[in-house]
Amino acid sequence: MTTPATVTLYGDVYSGNCYKLILCCRALDLPFDWKRIDILRGQSRTAEFLHLNPNGRIPLLVTAQQQTLAESNAILHYLARGSALLPQDDWAHAQMLQWQFFEQYSHEPAIAVARYIQRYLGLPEAEKARHAACLPKGYAALDVMEQHLSTRDFFVAEHFSLADISLYAYTHVADEGGFSLADYPHIRAWLARVQAQPGHISMDQAAGLYEAV
Amino acid sequence: MTTPATVTLYGDVYSGNCYKLILCCRALDLPFDWKRIDILRGQSRTAEFLHLNPNGRIPLLVTAQQQTLAESNAILHYLARGSALLPQDDWAHAQMLQWQFFEQYSHEPAIAVARYIQRYLGLPEAEKARHAACLPKGYAALDVMEQHLSTRDFFVAEHFSLADISLYAYTHVADEGGFSLADYPHIRAWLARVQAQPGHISMDQAAGLYEAV
Repeated sequence: MTTPATVTLYGDVYSGNCYKLILCCRALDLPFDWKRIDILRGQSRTAEFLHLNPNGRIPLLVTAQQQTLAESNAILHYLARGSALLPQDDWAHAQMLQWQFFEQYSHEPAIAVARYIQRYLGLPEAEKARHAACLPKGYAALDVMEQHLSTRDFFVAEHFSLADISLYAYTHVADEGGFSLADYPHIRAWLARVQAQPGHISMDQAAGLYEAV
Repeated sequence: MTTPATVTLYGDVYSGNCYKLILCCRALDLPFDWKRIDILRGQSRTAEFLHLNPNGRIPLLVTAQQQTLAESNAILHYLARGSALLPQDDWAHAQMLQWQFFEQYSHEPAIAVARYIQRYLGLPEAEKARHAACLPKGYAALDVMEQHLSTRDFFVAEHFSLADISLYAYTHVADEGGFSLADYPHIRAWLARVQAQPGHISMDQAAGLYEAV
């Protein structure tokens, strides 16, 4: 018998921000329903979806009572409440938040945007300047991560936490945005440690499991 | 006798991200030492500062034991731990994080960047396209806020929380980036409610108190 899912997650497994939620749910063995939203087909901009999230972005969590929660890292906190993925110590908790805000401010807008332009738009001429501008910013974020990981196995308090899930999401597909991790041995070793976590699946595996017709 | 400050905050009171911390400390009557970092003079890029924060950004919190914490909203969580500014209910806490991530992803990169270009750089010709690109994004964020505030007094759980502090920081100076709040009556009423909180001071007052020579 399957435990009934209490939350529905709207997203696209190939979006790092959405894939984060799958990694979290699987690490904690949480049930969930998944509804695919294809942003390239405008499905995050329909009247129906904007009613759920006025900011028009995925992922989105919807409870059985139709309450909604947006922003990938806020959703992670809700899903992981009370679990080992959320350090209880105040300082460690704040450090975890530091890395999650770093991810959304300094990492994602460079690495995820470069990937979007390259993988989804096919790096058209009109987007080349914007793509090029992402590269130094993305490498600066990778430099900060590499330095931090040179002396530890995980981002916070020597344990796998939401900070690792948040940063893994787009780092492991940075090559699809034109980034090379060749000079980032500590990041590569950390990616392998994240991949070795219980329940971990790739984006392709997640697509097969949750988005197959 | 003054309670000795246990944390030192590095920042610039006219930076919304730094000013947030002052609003939080004053709302909670927390002691702190303030060290001014002038980013226009490169003080966030010195070897000494990069040793404290490899990401080279302000604000930064440094403890008496020389532990460091970056990212404005993560610092707010640490400062406000155990206080009424942090809802204890899991759902309200997640909603607060939602608004703080919204602030750093959808609001600050448009409104704070437009303000930086207009107020600090003087809107030079070379930056006009980047400034113009910020305007629709910033107004989209203001639209989301206006809609949310049309049915409530504060962002989360009908209480003043860190979500209000985070969003107040750059919204109240949005005009310095070229935004008009004329069509945002609910936002203007909310700004006044935030300004009425105990301990509230303006950026100018904060400069006089914490950065006067």
